[in-house]
Amino acid sequence: MKADELTFDSDGLVPVVVQDSGTKAVLMLAYADAEAVRRTLATGTTWFWSRSRREYWNKGADSGNSQTVTEVRYDCDADALLVLVDPAGPACHTGEYSCFYRSMTTGESPGSLRGESTT
Amino acid sequence: MKADELTFDSDGLVPVVVQDSGTKAVLMLAYADAEAVRRTLATGTTWFWSRSRREYWNKGADSGNSQTVTEVRYDCDADALLVLVDPAGPACHTGEYSCFYRSMTTGESPGSLRGESTT
Repeated sequence: MKADELTFDSDGLVPVVVQDSGTKAVLMLAYADAEAVRRTLATGTTWFWSRSRREYWNKGADSGNSQTVTEVRYDCDADALLVLVDPAGPACHTGEYSCFYRSMTTGESPGSLRGESTT
Repeated sequence: MKADELTFDSDGLVPVVVQDSGTKAVLMLAYADAEAVRRTLATGTTWFWSRSRREYWNKGADSGNSQTVTEVRYDCDADALLVLVDPAGPACHTGEYSCFYRSMTTGESPGSLRGESTT
């Protein structure tokens, strides 16, 4: 499977789930076009397409919180990616370890959420 | 955070990452509108909007491979969900445990992929 063989949406994008390869926590969801996928594979760091800024985005290039890619998987329909990473710092621009730090079901206390290791 | 307070895309959808609350494996990515999110919260099982069939979809209603929801999280931009589940069977229509069973980086052998527990 090469980058341009994935099934992109009408905007030329696929959603990319980023997971910590160590803790298995889901860190963030972003979007990539074929070029961003190629850059991710070529550099071993995560590249995305920013829909709001309309530009390529190398995670951590500004913040230092880069993500070293250990694996890139694609799903059964080849229209979503799962990128396993070793993160150098928080994934979220808020400073949280994961962007998914709030719950619709158990309140907004990250430490008390079920199903995640906080170590 | 209520379902209709999420930030939906121009099609009225958010991407939903489904993660096994036990193994922490990412099982699948699907889409939900506000009604599907409400149904997920109300029933404790995963509901999605099928973009191809244009209908609501209660995971496992036909296959028996239902997903019991243990938590629903939303991300910093409130435009993506992470649903933690206890799956009753394979998530993938192919019979694979996870839809993300193929790799762009290490070949297509599920058992040998880095970063995932197969137990």
